Amino acid sequence: MITLHTPICDVLNIKYPIIQAGMAGGSTTVELIANVCNAGGLGTLGAGYMMPDDIRKAIRDIKQQTDRPFAVNMFCAKDPINPNEKKREHEVKDVLVSTGKHLGIKEEDIQFHTSDPFDERFQVLIEEEVPIISTAFGILPADKMEAAKKRNIKVISMVTTVKEAMIAERAGVDVIVAQGSDAGGHRSTFDIKEHPQGANIGTFSLIPQVVENVKIPVVAAGGVMNGRGLVAALALGAQGVQMGTKFLGSKESGIHPLYKKALFDSTEEQTVITKNFSGRPARGIKNTFIEEFDDSGVPPLPYPIQNTATSSIRKEASKQNQIEYMSLWAGQGLRFIHQENPAEMIIKELMGEAEKILG
Amino acid sequence: MITLHTPICDVLNIKYPIIQAGMAGGSTTVELIANVCNAGGLGTLGAGYMMPDDIRKAIRDIKQQTDRPFAVNMFCAKDPINPNEKKREHEVKDVLVSTGKHLGIKEEDIQFHTSDPFDERFQVLIEEEVPIISTAFGILPADKMEAAKKRNIKVISMVTTVKEAMIAERAGVDVIVAQGSDAGGHRSTFDIKEHPQGANIGTFSLIPQVVENVKIPVVAAGGVMNGRGLVAALALGAQGVQMGTKFLGSKESGIHPLYKKALFDSTEEQTVITKNFSGRPARGIKNTFIEEFDDSGVPPLPYPIQNTATSSIRKEASKQNQIEYMSLWAGQGLRFIHQENPAEMIIKELMGEAEKILG
Repeated sequence: MITLHTPICDVLNIKYPIIQAGMAGGSTTVELIANVCNAGGLGTLGAGYMMPDDIRKAIRDIKQQTDRPFAVNMFCAKDPINPNEKKREHEVKDVLVSTGKHLGIKEEDIQFHTSDPFDERFQVLIEEEVPIISTAFGILPADKMEAAKKRNIKVISMVTTVKEAMIAERAGVDVIVAQGSDAGGHRSTFDIKEHPQGANIGTFSLIPQVVENVKIPVVAAGGVMNGRGLVAALALGAQGVQMGTKFLGSKESGIHPLYKKALFDSTEEQTVITKNFSGRPARGIKNTFIEEFDDSGVPPLPYPIQNTATSSIRKEASKQNQIEYMSLWAGQGLRFIHQENPAEMIIKELMGEAEKILG
Repeated sequence: MITLHTPICDVLNIKYPIIQAGMAGGSTTVELIANVCNAGGLGTLGAGYMMPDDIRKAIRDIKQQTDRPFAVNMFCAKDPINPNEKKREHEVKDVLVSTGKHLGIKEEDIQFHTSDPFDERFQVLIEEEVPIISTAFGILPADKMEAAKKRNIKVISMVTTVKEAMIAERAGVDVIVAQGSDAGGHRSTFDIKEHPQGANIGTFSLIPQVVENVKIPVVAAGGVMNGRGLVAALALGAQGVQMGTKFLGSKESGIHPLYKKALFDSTEEQTVITKNFSGRPARGIKNTFIEEFDDSGVPPLPYPIQNTATSSIRKEASKQNQIEYMSLWAGQGLRFIHQENPAEMIIKELMGEAEKILG
């Protein structure tokens, strides 16, 4: 029997088995998170790139708007940075200056950083007593996992292979999000050296294999857009779904209006997996920036250096309404997103469709 | 309500909504096809590379062993062959001679052909009155579609995008197989110039988008390995499933014993999409041949030239039990295939699991 109220609803203390993905880059507004939570799902703050003080403010604002549990998503990458790669900064700079010339990008705008205030971010989550922490690109370090457990904070980790799921389970994670290659945005692959383009197992294949090999609850991510997707995920053995792209198109999402329009207008054929924006593989709608960087023949720098290097281009593109130079993260279910609906309506419609399918 | 007896069972006159994929290369033995049909599924002869007389013999043998309907699969590629590509034959030959030296491959063993007895194959299907024709890489030409229709032969076409599904529907196809990127073997993408690596939409995302955009029945392919997969496919809106990898591992499958063992021993992480064997993108277990050809930096020739060029290496590899030089087509659900079961047991177990999930 397939039922919509799965054990994960009790584990996370939510009404419906629906997680709004913790997408970084400003899309997960306080309003989106709070409305998802108030509608019975789990909202997630995408804090992967946020400054600690901004995270603190967002958490306090969320708590003003909902008394339901919410999650904060952290990036836990431990990608090796080869010193030889550092030597290639000048060639990457050349490509970016040339590509960004329409936007007025100059050499001094291209910055290369590796610093990442991970510990400071985590400290905020502890101090502000967030109910749930979710991670991408890896799991929390052992001491931080212990700190979270001690405070009864639930931990969710996103994986792209069975092996990663087993690593997460052994580390004490409460819930696994299995991210199929259908998903938009960054691949959550832990070891980027082993899988330079990400581990790209389709959602349909990944979910049941992860479910079969761990004992903790599994949530399906990648291509879930409606009630059909929820029921299929449950049939594959998942206890719920995580949706990113669908909520990117919501009324409350903080993405650029042209990006939102691109989501409504694109089809399943138009996304590619690229490392050109951040140095880590991510799925988005193909545009001029991706093509020009590919055509240059210069490989992108490792994450997070490439991300800082492309930051000024992405910011200027947004300011100047130049969609061809923004990162347009999106999954493969694009034909199911047509218009800007409120998050609450997205959740209600989805649950209604699922109930109808189950009869 | 999800029910296991879908309209497609009546369209194709089968008991269960399960199609055994028409894999080329000798895996679909007469015994496999007949046993699938007798167990209530639809068996398919993979005739893509077969000589017309061999097809005729196989059809007659199948009819001896079952009175149930069966299908014959045809390759309908219309890939453009650029004359400049022809000039690269010598560099491909160099790579193949070097890669094949362990197998005793010499220059004269590497052959380049483009001829394909498509019309002669089709003529056999008409003369022998096969009940169902299925196609990959494209649809039947209009005159052949008409000839099939006139004789009440049902036509199934495998697609990888919504656009291809709409082309197939307009051409009069009876049933669409939507092949997600999870699938093993060749991508069925029609226009290889538009999608040089195949259109790789995950099964989970592709199925509901195809279902939403055509009126004819859709069958899900790519990563279906068990009852969970069947129920999930039905939830996504499909009327049935097509399975390749699962039947490759069956007792009746005609693949090399070491290939079969590789299916049992591999995981979801070990497949890649490669054009190195045939010139068309196909998913298989990564081995030395794929790696060495990649490392050469020489692009494979177009299909079917690359296929004829690698033929002697594949044949010798099989004779000499050298698994590192065989084509090991496989989908992404590999952890669900452990041992050699008869086709009938595969179908019975799958239907039993599906019934249990539906309660």
